[in-house]
Amino acid sequence: VHQVRYRALVEYDGSGYFGFQRQRRDQPTIQGELENVLQELVQAPVRVTGAGRTDSGVHAMGQVISFELAWQHGLESLQRALNAGLPAGIAVYQLEEAAADFHPRFHATRRAYRYLVYNAPVRSPLWRLRSWHVSRPLLLESLQEASTMLVGEHDFATFGVAPQGELTRREVFSADWRRQEPFVAFRIEANAYLYRMVRSLVGSLVAVGTQSWRVEDFREAFKSGDRSRSAAPAPAQGLYLEAIQYGV
Amino acid sequence: VHQVRYRALVEYDGSGYFGFQRQRRDQPTIQGELENVLQELVQAPVRVTGAGRTDSGVHAMGQVISFELAWQHGLESLQRALNAGLPAGIAVYQLEEAAADFHPRFHATRRAYRYLVYNAPVRSPLWRLRSWHVSRPLLLESLQEASTMLVGEHDFATFGVAPQGELTRREVFSADWRRQEPFVAFRIEANAYLYRMVRSLVGSLVAVGTQSWRVEDFREAFKSGDRSRSAAPAPAQGLYLEAIQYGV
Repeated sequence: VHQVRYRALVEYDGSGYFGFQRQRRDQPTIQGELENVLQELVQAPVRVTGAGRTDSGVHAMGQVISFELAWQHGLESLQRALNAGLPAGIAVYQLEEAAADFHPRFHATRRAYRYLVYNAPVRSPLWRLRSWHVSRPLLLESLQEASTMLVGEHDFATFGVAPQGELTRREVFSADWRRQEPFVAFRIEANAYLYRMVRSLVGSLVAVGTQSWRVEDFREAFKSGDRSRSAAPAPAQGLYLEAIQYGV
Repeated sequence: VHQVRYRALVEYDGSGYFGFQRQRRDQPTIQGELENVLQELVQAPVRVTGAGRTDSGVHAMGQVISFELAWQHGLESLQRALNAGLPAGIAVYQLEEAAADFHPRFHATRRAYRYLVYNAPVRSPLWRLRSWHVSRPLLLESLQEASTMLVGEHDFATFGVAPQGELTRREVFSADWRRQEPFVAFRIEANAYLYRMVRSLVGSLVAVGTQSWRVEDFREAFKSGDRSRSAAPAPAQGLYLEAIQYGV
């Protein structure tokens, strides 16, 4: 049986995981769980690559992963075996063969994240691990006005740190807020992100939405490129890696 | 300070609780947590009554509770103190004074439950504690056709057990299914329910929806009044106590 490269869509509940990327042995991660199940299946080490390294507590509806495997029982049985072996917090909901050189991170052209704010006076027990509770009312117009500045190619140094050897410029294709009571949801699509960028953006935008910051304060912080002028990052449990796009 | 009767709306995440009603000391319950916090506040035992005794794992958006308390710092501070003392899985999102003889169970005239089915080929990690995963496609028309039979006053002995000394007749005001991809949600409103009634109904209706049962099988089981002819009850984690109504 020869090795084939696979590509899969993965959903996970980030609560209880130390992020996507494999860590020390005693810290469960999404990559670690996926690699363990694959290793069980073929009795050999398998390396899983992901499109985005989500932080501890961050969720995904559309993480893209890839791995090479020598498997002879067909795609459907591989997906079933994966889902049977994975813990309840992780599932593979699409699986296909990929080109031998496919790389989920290097070949991605657009990445969409969603951030869910629960905007009501009292916290919600049912949404506590899936959203950020903001009790002060959010002004949608201000959120949207500040977000419009993000669209285009800009230096995002205020809102995140570049991976070593990379610059801090990124291209944002869209950044929109929508209210669906009692939630206010943010969706952003960009070519790529700096570390902590979405959560720092949401933290700073929510400061505008609650009128702790004026839109002008946001603009100045953004232009300054000074990391210390970002608001505290929004908590991880409201963030979802929604979708990754390849090609144009 | 004299005792005042309060009425409150409570939301909770049923996962990790042994239902609403207080159990043995080592089994956490919603009633138990509420009573513990109230007792802390006034340094005296307080008895909490609920409108519905939800089972282990069942959630609530609109549980109604009542208790008597000697409190002199106002409603708002009482609600804040309750929410500060309660665990993250329980919250009081409305609090008011009630008539001295108000009883959340005896005075309730309508109770609405919601049941959430996650209907897709692969299970959802993000919804695993908030829904029932049914992988076979559900036929909405069949679900709805069978549910229509429930409306009116009927003997529901097939689908549940009456509390001691009560009959098995109940009046259902509405019973509807709605699809909102990838969910199919059931909402039922009745004057009251038998033990396990909503979950047994959903289990049997889903058997119709997946075409394991014909609508005719459901009708015969319903008419038989034979508890052994119900399908297995749907799992607790998909069920939500949505709202309680008082008066007409």
